[in-house]
Amino acid sequence: MKRIRDYGIRIGKGRPGPHNKITDVLGVTVGHATIKEGDVQTGVTAIYPHKGNLFKEKVVASSHVINGFGKTQGLLQVQELGAIETPILLTNTLNIGIVCDGLIEYMLEENKEIGVTTGTVNPIIGECNDGYLNDIRGRHVQKHHVFEALEKDTVDFDEGSVGAGTGMTAYGLKGGIGSASRRIRLSDREYTVGVLVLSNFGKLENLLLDGRKIGKWIDQKQKIGETQKQQETEDKGSVIIVLATDAPLSDRQLNRISKRVTVGLARTGSEIGHGSGDIVIAFSTKNLIAHESAKIVTKIECLAEEKLNEFFSGTIEAVEESVINSMITAETTVGRNQHCRVSLREYLDEYENEHK
Amino acid sequence: MKRIRDYGIRIGKGRPGPHNKITDVLGVTVGHATIKEGDVQTGVTAIYPHKGNLFKEKVVASSHVINGFGKTQGLLQVQELGAIETPILLTNTLNIGIVCDGLIEYMLEENKEIGVTTGTVNPIIGECNDGYLNDIRGRHVQKHHVFEALEKDTVDFDEGSVGAGTGMTAYGLKGGIGSASRRIRLSDREYTVGVLVLSNFGKLENLLLDGRKIGKWIDQKQKIGETQKQQETEDKGSVIIVLATDAPLSDRQLNRISKRVTVGLARTGSEIGHGSGDIVIAFSTKNLIAHESAKIVTKIECLAEEKLNEFFSGTIEAVEESVINSMITAETTVGRNQHCRVSLREYLDEYENEHK
Amino acid sequence: MKRIRDYGIRIGKGRPGPHNKITDVLGVTVGHATIKEGDVQTGVTAIYPHKGNLFKEKVVASSHVINGFGKTQGLLQVQELGAIETPILLTNTLNIGIVCDGLIEYMLEENKEIGVTTGTVNPIIGECNDGYLNDIRGRHVQKHHVFEALEKDTVDFDEGSVGAGTGMTAYGLKGGIGSASRRIRLSDREYTVGVLVLSNFGKLENLLLDGRKIGKWIDQKQKIGETQKQQETEDKGSVIIVLATDAPLSDRQLNRISKRVTVGLARTGSEIGHGSGDIVIAFSTKNLIAHESAKIVTKIECLAEEKLNEFFSGTIEAVEESVINSMITAETTVGRNQHCRVSLREYLDEYENEHK
Amino acid sequence: MKRIRDYGIRIGKGRPGPHNKITDVLGVTVGHATIKEGDVQTGVTAIYPHKGNLFKEKVVASSHVINGFGKTQGLLQVQELGAIETPILLTNTLNIGIVCDGLIEYMLEENKEIGVTTGTVNPIIGECNDGYLNDIRGRHVQKHHVFEALEKDTVDFDEGSVGAGTGMTAYGLKGGIGSASRRIRLSDREYTVGVLVLSNFGKLENLLLDGRKIGKWIDQKQKIGETQKQQETEDKGSVIIVLATDAPLSDRQLNRISKRVTVGLARTGSEIGHGSGDIVIAFSTKNLIAHESAKIVTKIECLAEEKLNEFFSGTIEAVEESVINSMITAETTVGRNQHCRVSLREYLDEYENEHK
Repeated sequence: MKRIRDYGIRIGKGRPGPHNKITDVLGVTVGHATIKEGDVQTGVTAIYPHKGNLFKEKVVASSHVINGFGKTQGLLQVQELGAIETPILLTNTLNIGIVCDGLIEYMLEENKEIGVTTGTVNPIIGECNDGYLNDIRGRHVQKHHVFEALEKDTVDFDEGSVGAGTGMTAYGLKGGIGSASRRIRLSDREYTVGVLVLSNFGKLENLLLDGRKIGKWIDQKQKIGETQKQQETEDKGSVIIVLATDAPLSDRQLNRISKRVTVGLARTGSEIGHGSGDIVIAFSTKNLIAHESAKIVTKIECLAEEKLNEFFSGTIEAVEESVINSMITAETTVGRNQHCRVSLREYLDEYENEHK
Repeated sequence: MKRIRDYGIRIGKGRPGPHNKITDVLGVTVGHATIKEGDVQTGVTAIYPHKGNLFKEKVVASSHVINGFGKTQGLLQVQELGAIETPILLTNTLNIGIVCDGLIEYMLEENKEIGVTTGTVNPIIGECNDGYLNDIRGRHVQKHHVFEALEKDTVDFDEGSVGAGTGMTAYGLKGGIGSASRRIRLSDREYTVGVLVLSNFGKLENLLLDGRKIGKWIDQKQKIGETQKQQETEDKGSVIIVLATDAPLSDRQLNRISKRVTVGLARTGSEIGHGSGDIVIAFSTKNLIAHESAKIVTKIECLAEEKLNEFFSGTIEAVEESVINSMITAETTVGRNQHCRVSLREYLDEYENEHK
Repeated sequence: MKRIRDYGIRIGKGRPGPHNKITDVLGVTVGHATIKEGDVQTGVTAIYPHKGNLFKEKVVASSHVINGFGKTQGLLQVQELGAIETPILLTNTLNIGIVCDGLIEYMLEENKEIGVTTGTVNPIIGECNDGYLNDIRGRHVQKHHVFEALEKDTVDFDEGSVGAGTGMTAYGLKGGIGSASRRIRLSDREYTVGVLVLSNFGKLENLLLDGRKIGKWIDQKQKIGETQKQQETEDKGSVIIVLATDAPLSDRQLNRISKRVTVGLARTGSEIGHGSGDIVIAFSTKNLIAHESAKIVTKIECLAEEKLNEFFSGTIEAVEESVINSMITAETTVGRNQHCRVSLREYLDEYENEHK
Repeated sequence: MKRIRDYGIRIGKGRPGPHNKITDVLGVTVGHATIKEGDVQTGVTAIYPHKGNLFKEKVVASSHVINGFGKTQGLLQVQELGAIETPILLTNTLNIGIVCDGLIEYMLEENKEIGVTTGTVNPIIGECNDGYLNDIRGRHVQKHHVFEALEKDTVDFDEGSVGAGTGMTAYGLKGGIGSASRRIRLSDREYTVGVLVLSNFGKLENLLLDGRKIGKWIDQKQKIGETQKQQETEDKGSVIIVLATDAPLSDRQLNRISKRVTVGLARTGSEIGHGSGDIVIAFSTKNLIAHESAKIVTKIECLAEEKLNEFFSGTIEAVEESVINSMITAETTVGRNQHCRVSLREYLDEYENEHK
């Protein structure tokens, strides 16, 4: 799959990691289950913060609700305790129940003590509404899709119309899964911030490609075309943004970084529409938290606050690039009722030719 | 079922409504599905804010997280939009996924336009961990239990070891579903505030009955008994508190009332333990919100802010009484692995005799 | 003073009100006290939500903290009660105490019952750090400056290096006070959203003018100049954004609009730097709230939620244009220790010539 | 001054530190400036988290707004950065401006680099309305009172009608400054949590003394007395609660502890009245934060989350005892317009005699 850098377009000033994906944060893996057949265009995406036992070794975490018109599950406890103890699953809005149930089943299987000698578990599920392309009322995701996504995790995962991104729409074009990363050098240390988005938001006319108004150009192009390919391009989707880092950030610091995601979205043209559930989930793989600690006090590393600016810039750029990657890697998709979302890549060459 | 007032104990100074239950708020109904067989002690409770089409006529709502060590589903959108659009379901922690799925199914059935011509729906599910008495890992709640609770709703619902309360523990004794209400008279107007709790929190030694230290007394009683009936009485359950009113309160005002719930819990002896997910969900049945409005501007009623003190007092009392009702109506229950939780009522007469 | 539209640059797609200022919201007025003499470059700006008795007729209000590295006074009560009851004052960071004291004195003078037969009053003061150009340690604002700003209020107020904006820096250039407005047409109704910013944030290289990278161009220009005019251009200032509207919005709805301000700032190049206290204060002049109401219930107008998207777009554009106006109207200023901040207008013509 | 333990009344189960005051947290000191002359009954109280340079070595901190009907200054930055960098000052509501100005002056004096080579400073000021006993409109606190409170700090400070507490009213009786502490033993480690309150809240009839309804008894006593001594006993004051600990808690953990303060207030009879600005400010003296750090990463200690329950209990008890101490140490005071607030100690002996 060609990503935006493969077209010679470099978003921002920072340096990406080797994969330019969230998996550049060591230990993070991503898996998809894709359901793609006619009217059914949906799926599940799983993000592992690490591949050890997450319940026993939780990651420091935070979240930020940019716009709460969404159904993401699990954030109350993330905010209270500053920790995530399961993989993060993404799916379509009407399947959050079954995906939640599947994730609980998976966690119980992995941890025989849950509900017996220890407490329960806090599943994290994000969602967007893929109902334009997908028969969302059919609720086609089943538990085996959850397990499939959890089993097929890898470092070099696919983007675009895969997993939870299969049926998503971004800026009136095809959206889906996108990712990017940035390296942050602080003196002799180097950290990574990685981003994965499930993009399903935005109005076509607002789309910006590295600051250029490609959305307006495509919009006019479509209007003078013989048939109008697009409909319903109001800014009422949603976007889930997962942030990972290996830097020793506290939950408060992760929250501060999460708040800068809005700037990354704005750079692609978002106005954070009323109907768009825009939710950030962030974690650090440093300073793991034991489920039950024998120790009263542990020593942890902590990044100096004034160094966060580097992480803000890196996050903003990685969010922008992730959104664009989610669109440029997604293929044109015809789904429910012959609804169609065209890929950004069908327009890019012509746009570049006209705008040299 | 004898409730606490039937024992001659009157909590607080206020005047309850005719049922002294949340259903004194006109239109509110409650239904249970109870699963009770040996190691399986669990269920579902459904609260309808009204029996019209909730999706099309939403209730003004808010929530408050007293302690976020919990998995309640749906609050992000409640806080963003100030509205609830489904019945509120309560169940055990490891069944939130399947109950969420059941509620979505119910809402889709009722509203054929969801996911086709309009957006999705925001299910509200609260939970507590009933794993001491219930084989919670077995996840015995199924979708038909959800539908059963939704179908069996009534004004004069049961309390105690029923529905979601079947396997719950409060203050080391048997907990469950409890309810109470208060009438609020403001000049020539009269309003009602109604409360329903799913109680599953507290340490026995802290339990207060109308300010009297009954918990300490029971604790000592048990210790000198031949066999110790109780175990694991650490303050690590949870409590879900649902508030209803017919007063014209805004979401901000409902939030302010929700914050006073802590005082009601404190009056029963709670210290808001680390492991207790204490969550308030509040709604007003006045000023219904249309799903899609033809009107740009509507006129709504709005209560003067300084009148809220009456609602604070009424709420605090109704919360205290609801918790006590949940315990006094609950029957002694033997469940998983012969674990037992004794009913408060087994101690009350003797306590009163000794403390005349 | 030439504003950005006078240079033929139109920010966004919306239509401004007659003054293209916050005062297009009927009743809003703004006054300045400017202190400008050598090392002293500071002042006070006052925004009146209306010119009646604000304490007796409060405006519905909300606030949003984009980044809380700031000292703004008064927001706790705004969030709790959803109301503002004083003019909003802006000044430099180290003078918030004396400005607060001045505002209290003003309110006591206007309302003889405060502290006698009724409670106290909640002064609202926003601030930015003008210490680069201003001898901020000297704390040169005095109470008479507060009264001066409060007395000199007008509809057609000045922008740029005036009032609280006198010594401010934006994007390494001269910042200060800027304003803009947008009309929102909904069927047969028309509303206005007005914005006033006190700009003191941003890194030069990030500055965008209507999406174009003018900051990078100026930055390079300065570097090849004989003397480097600028220093300390790290993103560590602050920005206070005041939003006014005449639409019947609730405090929750005002809060939702406030959250979109980040997008407007991002369009000018902000990355919401760690050290930047970015604070939004929003109010509606519709639905005034009586200090003490004889009525238990009042009827108020309420805008349908899904119409907010129009307000989001209008706010975003007005924020972007306000920031640019604050810079283009500000004059090059030499202050403390001969520190200098150049006006954007010194670069604009040349930039436009080079980029035709 | 006799404190509540000197009357043989022990609040709670925990063990206090040697002074049973906030100053049991090593390094914490408290100073008062008391202004007490006829109609003028007010003052300033200063709490030092430590006596080193607070600006250069900040304490980890958090805050919690129980009810935001208050004017406390400085919390935005505390929440954003998790740190406090000045002493905490308390005063009357209408003097927050001048006290803020005095604290800024003090900080500038101590830190010559503020506003020159580094940024500004975030003053923390809490307040309650003492207008019943004090001529609050006269705003009698001056800057020299601020300096006096800051200079007269000590470990064994006075309670009751001193400093900011001089003119305060609690439960219709005389309120003011109160303090208490608890030792927390965790295995071989011992920590302290200390509390200081400025009490100015509550309705007389609700007052509880260690769970006993003394308020109701006093209320009836006063009503049958020849002259009614009290007036205006509505629950509309405020209470500021300062929490200190030497345990290695993060800002998030301090916030969790702060939320349990409500339980401590409830135990004294509070219903968190609409008009009461109830604000918690919490800090830990462990893990000091450098203003500007040469190090990118520091190592800090961190308490295991599940140990917090001990701190919750200790805090709740110390808050309850602090409120009672503030009342029992306060002397009967006649102030503005011959308004009088009687001391709790005038009733205690008789109450105890009647209730043996």
